[in-house]
Amino acid sequence: MKQQTNKELRIVAGRSSDAFAASVCAELGVQLDKTDIENFANGEVHVRYAHSIRGCDAFIIGTHAEWEGGSINDAIVEQLVMVDAAKRASAKRITVVAPFYGYARQDRKASGREPISARLLADMFRAAGATRLLSVDLHSGQIQGFFDGPVDHLTAMPVLLEFLQSLEADDLVIVSPDAGRVKVAERYTNLLHADLAIVHKRRENSNEVSAKVIVGDVDGRTCVIVDDMIDTGGTIVAAAELLAANGASRVIAATTHAVFSGPAVERLRNSAIDMVVCTDTLPLTKRKLFEKLQVVSVAPIVAQAISAVFEDTSVSEIFGGENLV
Amino acid sequence: MKQQTNKELRIVAGRSSDAFAASVCAELGVQLDKTDIENFANGEVHVRYAHSIRGCDAFIIGTHAEWEGGSINDAIVEQLVMVDAAKRASAKRITVVAPFYGYARQDRKASGREPISARLLADMFRAAGATRLLSVDLHSGQIQGFFDGPVDHLTAMPVLLEFLQSLEADDLVIVSPDAGRVKVAERYTNLLHADLAIVHKRRENSNEVSAKVIVGDVDGRTCVIVDDMIDTGGTIVAAAELLAANGASRVIAATTHAVFSGPAVERLRNSAIDMVVCTDTLPLTKRKLFEKLQVVSVAPIVAQAISAVFEDTSVSEIFGGENLV
Amino acid sequence: MKQQTNKELRIVAGRSSDAFAASVCAELGVQLDKTDIENFANGEVHVRYAHSIRGCDAFIIGTHAEWEGGSINDAIVEQLVMVDAAKRASAKRITVVAPFYGYARQDRKASGREPISARLLADMFRAAGATRLLSVDLHSGQIQGFFDGPVDHLTAMPVLLEFLQSLEADDLVIVSPDAGRVKVAERYTNLLHADLAIVHKRRENSNEVSAKVIVGDVDGRTCVIVDDMIDTGGTIVAAAELLAANGASRVIAATTHAVFSGPAVERLRNSAIDMVVCTDTLPLTKRKLFEKLQVVSVAPIVAQAISAVFEDTSVSEIFGGENLV
Amino acid sequence: MKQQTNKELRIVAGRSSDAFAASVCAELGVQLDKTDIENFANGEVHVRYAHSIRGCDAFIIGTHAEWEGGSINDAIVEQLVMVDAAKRASAKRITVVAPFYGYARQDRKASGREPISARLLADMFRAAGATRLLSVDLHSGQIQGFFDGPVDHLTAMPVLLEFLQSLEADDLVIVSPDAGRVKVAERYTNLLHADLAIVHKRRENSNEVSAKVIVGDVDGRTCVIVDDMIDTGGTIVAAAELLAANGASRVIAATTHAVFSGPAVERLRNSAIDMVVCTDTLPLTKRKLFEKLQVVSVAPIVAQAISAVFEDTSVSEIFGGENLV
Amino acid sequence: MKQQTNKELRIVAGRSSDAFAASVCAELGVQLDKTDIENFANGEVHVRYAHSIRGCDAFIIGTHAEWEGGSINDAIVEQLVMVDAAKRASAKRITVVAPFYGYARQDRKASGREPISARLLADMFRAAGATRLLSVDLHSGQIQGFFDGPVDHLTAMPVLLEFLQSLEADDLVIVSPDAGRVKVAERYTNLLHADLAIVHKRRENSNEVSAKVIVGDVDGRTCVIVDDMIDTGGTIVAAAELLAANGASRVIAATTHAVFSGPAVERLRNSAIDMVVCTDTLPLTKRKLFEKLQVVSVAPIVAQAISAVFEDTSVSEIFGGENLV
Amino acid sequence: MKQQTNKELRIVAGRSSDAFAASVCAELGVQLDKTDIENFANGEVHVRYAHSIRGCDAFIIGTHAEWEGGSINDAIVEQLVMVDAAKRASAKRITVVAPFYGYARQDRKASGREPISARLLADMFRAAGATRLLSVDLHSGQIQGFFDGPVDHLTAMPVLLEFLQSLEADDLVIVSPDAGRVKVAERYTNLLHADLAIVHKRRENSNEVSAKVIVGDVDGRTCVIVDDMIDTGGTIVAAAELLAANGASRVIAATTHAVFSGPAVERLRNSAIDMVVCTDTLPLTKRKLFEKLQVVSVAPIVAQAISAVFEDTSVSEIFGGENLV
Repeated sequence: MKQQTNKELRIVAGRSSDAFAASVCAELGVQLDKTDIENFANGEVHVRYAHSIRGCDAFIIGTHAEWEGGSINDAIVEQLVMVDAAKRASAKRITVVAPFYGYARQDRKASGREPISARLLADMFRAAGATRLLSVDLHSGQIQGFFDGPVDHLTAMPVLLEFLQSLEADDLVIVSPDAGRVKVAERYTNLLHADLAIVHKRRENSNEVSAKVIVGDVDGRTCVIVDDMIDTGGTIVAAAELLAANGASRVIAATTHAVFSGPAVERLRNSAIDMVVCTDTLPLTKRKLFEKLQVVSVAPIVAQAISAVFEDTSVSEIFGGENLV
Repeated sequence: MKQQTNKELRIVAGRSSDAFAASVCAELGVQLDKTDIENFANGEVHVRYAHSIRGCDAFIIGTHAEWEGGSINDAIVEQLVMVDAAKRASAKRITVVAPFYGYARQDRKASGREPISARLLADMFRAAGATRLLSVDLHSGQIQGFFDGPVDHLTAMPVLLEFLQSLEADDLVIVSPDAGRVKVAERYTNLLHADLAIVHKRRENSNEVSAKVIVGDVDGRTCVIVDDMIDTGGTIVAAAELLAANGASRVIAATTHAVFSGPAVERLRNSAIDMVVCTDTLPLTKRKLFEKLQVVSVAPIVAQAISAVFEDTSVSEIFGGENLV
Repeated sequence: MKQQTNKELRIVAGRSSDAFAASVCAELGVQLDKTDIENFANGEVHVRYAHSIRGCDAFIIGTHAEWEGGSINDAIVEQLVMVDAAKRASAKRITVVAPFYGYARQDRKASGREPISARLLADMFRAAGATRLLSVDLHSGQIQGFFDGPVDHLTAMPVLLEFLQSLEADDLVIVSPDAGRVKVAERYTNLLHADLAIVHKRRENSNEVSAKVIVGDVDGRTCVIVDDMIDTGGTIVAAAELLAANGASRVIAATTHAVFSGPAVERLRNSAIDMVVCTDTLPLTKRKLFEKLQVVSVAPIVAQAISAVFEDTSVSEIFGGENLV
Repeated sequence: MKQQTNKELRIVAGRSSDAFAASVCAELGVQLDKTDIENFANGEVHVRYAHSIRGCDAFIIGTHAEWEGGSINDAIVEQLVMVDAAKRASAKRITVVAPFYGYARQDRKASGREPISARLLADMFRAAGATRLLSVDLHSGQIQGFFDGPVDHLTAMPVLLEFLQSLEADDLVIVSPDAGRVKVAERYTNLLHADLAIVHKRRENSNEVSAKVIVGDVDGRTCVIVDDMIDTGGTIVAAAELLAANGASRVIAATTHAVFSGPAVERLRNSAIDMVVCTDTLPLTKRKLFEKLQVVSVAPIVAQAISAVFEDTSVSEIFGGENLV
Repeated sequence: MKQQTNKELRIVAGRSSDAFAASVCAELGVQLDKTDIENFANGEVHVRYAHSIRGCDAFIIGTHAEWEGGSINDAIVEQLVMVDAAKRASAKRITVVAPFYGYARQDRKASGREPISARLLADMFRAAGATRLLSVDLHSGQIQGFFDGPVDHLTAMPVLLEFLQSLEADDLVIVSPDAGRVKVAERYTNLLHADLAIVHKRRENSNEVSAKVIVGDVDGRTCVIVDDMIDTGGTIVAAAELLAANGASRVIAATTHAVFSGPAVERLRNSAIDMVVCTDTLPLTKRKLFEKLQVVSVAPIVAQAISAVFEDTSVSEIFGGENLV
Repeated sequence: MKQQTNKELRIVAGRSSDAFAASVCAELGVQLDKTDIENFANGEVHVRYAHSIRGCDAFIIGTHAEWEGGSINDAIVEQLVMVDAAKRASAKRITVVAPFYGYARQDRKASGREPISARLLADMFRAAGATRLLSVDLHSGQIQGFFDGPVDHLTAMPVLLEFLQSLEADDLVIVSPDAGRVKVAERYTNLLHADLAIVHKRRENSNEVSAKVIVGDVDGRTCVIVDDMIDTGGTIVAAAELLAANGASRVIAATTHAVFSGPAVERLRNSAIDMVVCTDTLPLTKRKLFEKLQVVSVAPIVAQAISAVFEDTSVSEIFGGENLV
């Protein structure tokens, strides 16, 4: 019995990513596949795919974030359970799409007896049955190496750059908010032909606490602080104050992942920052929206990548052949 | 360079199991090892062991339950992260102690396109670095087979039986609240020399909904409904009403795992049940305590088992050589 | 060099399943693929596929049973060797079809220091190279979770039900022969709108041996004892005697797997059982056939499932979307 | 809680190796550990260790051979089940002791679409939980490389050589019975300062069948045919006839593994062979014993190796630092 | 979104195999895919595929040999890195094509405390992401069993035989240069209807060193020494001298793998060997070419095999259904 | 048979690390264990341990570097082969000690279709049998997460800092030679209470090439450029020229890994750099030594770590409880 082989794209989404998945499907012109997800009374997630996904090329979208229905860990476990269900339902290939990849900051042991949770997560998805991973602006590029399989590492840089260019500022200084993010800041300087500054911690002498200082010239300039994520906003707001104190004429914060935990929105609103630009990799609930905030969408980029993965065309060409992070 | 080899027992606990771990340590006469656990602002768990556990025989206690600090998934991910940290900190052997093993009800595909989350969990712990598993009254004994390594499957039956015997009722009927739990109920009948009854679903004809009926004689008897867990209490309360309606003189509910989700306490309090006896495998927060509730502790059993595992003596002897479930 | 991808179904069979595989192939309208299987003089199995199976979607049928050519272990090792040969011959996908899955009763540790052989078997098939598993009425549904990959768990219930309905008995009682099989019995009651009874072991006091008692009303009724397998027939014959002694008007035994070991046929023939209905998941050698026996075939169900797996259509739809066991 | 670590040797045996295991234990001065092994009525093996083996250094002896209780596959599955039980019973280290390693002749694909069953076996033992393997005179040394872990590959050569030297023949020719065993024969020539001859297949022309011819001089000499195993005896008896026809004064067959399948004993008894010397790696049931047969025991060698493995001393020193095969 | 599935053949090559890969591509009528390979200053290999290979059926050719750009280990690591890059670039299937498989002589532990490097290599390729292996005349057939997946084991025998037959010598003796290669030599005798002789080591008494002796008749005959590889040429040249001294009329050396290390060419040139015939599995740099050398190409065989693997047709049929080694 | 368990430390070394291993052993007061390592004529490494290492705690030292006997890939393969040999020789635990971990710069995909070779290496060592990894100043801390097991990540910072402090310069500026190393530079500023400057690439406009610029004040100051490794010296020499051109009074280069490939020594000698301080993680052959070079040894640090690993005491305490990189 011989047959020609066909393949079928199927997109399903966890509850933390309803809206984003809808945008991606709209871009692709496909239907988001119905999945019944609910919690048992004690919080255990239960998942059932409404339609057969036997033999399909399944993309399971789930961003790793607290959402109205649960914590970031709830979102992660939900996605793992979805992967298991897809594996046992005979999906042919399973791509985990995590626009924001959780635990990415725990990508090395900063001190002894700590976990490397970002690797743990990669192993969890692998063990559950994920064949491949797709994410946006991982906290460090090395996380690609944590997954034993292909990772499509996308970047929001094109849409953030486009936004920044639309501001038509010709006195831009790109500011790295700490010593570990200078590489990314440098990339922005090159693409925007801007100058670079960095904020870093300085410990005056062995007994004193450290203070933050700016290296680079910011006086009278439009400063764009770039970071992969804004969590509580503490670091970026402190950097902004320092920039303002050093004469910056305008402070913009550009970030991919709008985590905006706890006091973040309040802090950003009351800070020296004039404008925040972010993307939709994380659910942008009402709580997160405020007057200074500009949102650009990565749904077209993710949709393009999914399409390329499905059709076996190049993903890196979406970004001009270069993994930008 | 030659040395004699030593081994050292070390017990650490996740935040859902503070109290239980303390009881276990008290039984063993050891100190609970200090672990710094906190959440990042976005909910990611961060763990660091306060002391070196290099070369130790580590027991990581974490029950899978919602607790004041988070959901069941938070508890599970926290325990996984603790396992990863212990592995990377060179613990010699890592035993996951989960007094209540989460997702145990998802131990098979009840219908197509569902996960088998109980297996997924076992794989997660394995992938994170767990060498062995220790749990109490797994929802089904087969879950032992989900873990690729030794599982010490304990049972609370001895302490529950002791309690029931102390009631000195000589007209006991053991009641299985549904068709899937009759095996366990039968074990109670044998050890208490009691009769058996079961509550089961009966669908009268193809169009009607099903009704519950009792098989077995309960009129004028002391009925003990036994179940591994009480979650929302729906099943057990319905069984109790049916028993009362059929003439039961007294209704007792005996369970290992006091999940007590949502309306459970309210339901149990207002039900035909006269007494509920449970154990401390799950955190017994104030919310869960009510006048009809009797708690017996499995901490001595878990402590004995940990000690046997550490000292390489028999665990099954704790239970007279028999895995009771 | 580009080509369109094709796929080809190929069915091969171990020697314990010649007849069954022929039935399945007849249903599918395909040829059973020729395989040279023989034993070395010392009993080692040797296998060679007669035709290239490179790139094929191979289904390797082998029921786990003693047959005229060897023991159940011979059948299992033969199937493992066939899987290895298929893997090394570059079959694209390998589905182990075990109509009766051996060692299924060893699915948990009933007492300490026992194996969980059903898990061992699943791991063996995985290690040999099986991608997926297909079986009928596993002793427990949890065995699906023992295999790290998709399992198509079929049930003979439709054909057994159809047979029972054809008897047009309106006073049916479904009897579970022991406490562990009540769940399955309940399912029959619901689909046949019948009553339920169970036979269970009762230990009168601590020194005496246990006796079997019936819970539920069977007097003057047509009793159908349902069980997944009849091995030596001991349990089911004892249940039948008890039913008869309690006034059952007629006793029918319905089972999927006609293991019929040792004294089984003799026992069944001489028992209170009026009729035995079974399927063809196990070879029905002459020795097993006797006047009371009715056989219904699961070959159409297995054939449908194989076809669905090959063509990537839903298997659960064969059973109306529900995994019945 | 700190303790000094101890280790304990424990030897258990499958039913095919009762006698051999007893010899090994006698050599070591230890007790063979009691194991309850039985078959379910349908042939499934059931195993339970009588005593706790938690934390022990377990050696599971089981030769791969047909014995009075079953086939070679029964013996293999029994040993696999024993390994699984030992793993789940928390044995610290599990060494599979297979004096004769089954399926060793299937160590490569002699033609397309064949399995490599010797590798399959190694993977099975690994997947079941074996940490290490110990065997005697593997059919090819490469089989060591099939197991992902340490293999202690012993040889019976010392005891066979000792026997041959005791014959005090000074005109020895060592004969390889086919082209694939010349390497081993050469080793004997070197240790016995003997000459070499080989029997090989010669195909005269493309249409004719092949005939066997001798290369090397055997006229008037004492010929010792050496082979790792004698199965049906066909090859070795044919070689003996050819040697006799070519003037050999005396023909001795020396082998490690006395498989002696089917017509072997009859053939050997009636052949030109004057004496057969073998070891006890396989059960030497009465059926196998005949007047020309001399048996030398490898139990002392196996016991020495087990002792060295347990005590972490050198195994290769038992053989003077050289793996002879 | 549904699509028909296509597949695409893609061939890439490491730097040790430029020429051979070009021949194979020419045979297949395809383009060798461009790969950027270079070394970092400290010798680390860096690889980048010039074109997307997403979803392709990739064949990565790399023979394991010293070449002008590096050592055999450089060639092996380069191929491993290529496999990793292909896996992460989402190649659908990755076949490692190693015309000469390195470390093949380390296929067993010849003495204690040695590695089995041929297995290590197989595991390395597997861990890197290779799905399958294709090689020519492995040093031992068992190496197929070292790889956990399909191995296409080709042989150069057809082209070497064709060459030898073209010599039209009717007095051929096939000579095995040592005791371990007699099996292969025998195969040549059968296909050429020739006689067999072997050279083997003989130790006269325990104190003396061993000497080489010939078993079989070579006087006045055309002797063809066959071996899988010629490394330093020591063994084969010694055999040739011995043959000449024993009256051989002509000595030909036939080998698949022209390793020709160190003094090999000089030795061969000055030896009693009249002609050497080899294949192109290893780079035939100028240094290796000398007047007595005849080269026959296996590129057509490798090309045919790649084509069969890609198109899912039989590889063993290329060799008449038989794995010749 | 019961025994007390002992453990024994054993240190072996690959040929690239002879001198360093000797220093480490001297620090520990133990003997370097003899290993026979040689190359086959074609470059294949052959390894044999001179003494039994059964049951030992083996540390296999091998830095990943070109040395007089071979390339970096030769060194890596040699260490892999040593691990395999140790595994098969029954070492109890195998720690790979790689003072310089090769391919560390390939720790992420900088562009599409590249490998992540640092992960590949980690997987290779794991597959070969390494239980743990010990290295010094990994190029990125995330590489710890590439290995599935414990990694002891040491740092040379204490000895480099001690050296820099001995210079008693009170006008230090720590300079990061590119945007990716600022984090490490910042750590130096904090421990030395120094200022920070960075050299970064600046692209003036889209068509021009980029130029390097300094951010931070260096005029009249002692500049210490810190980097984990100096390979060809290109980056660091360019940075030094720029610093000199910007008025630096003195330029010091401090690095852990003295790779010093190709033109490095020549470049450094002729550069604006006044002093280079490095460690002995890589072999310091004569070629590498020049007048400006100061070497400090990490052998005491590595020895302390090995001792702590062997004795199960804390490694992070060696560094005051902090992983510095």
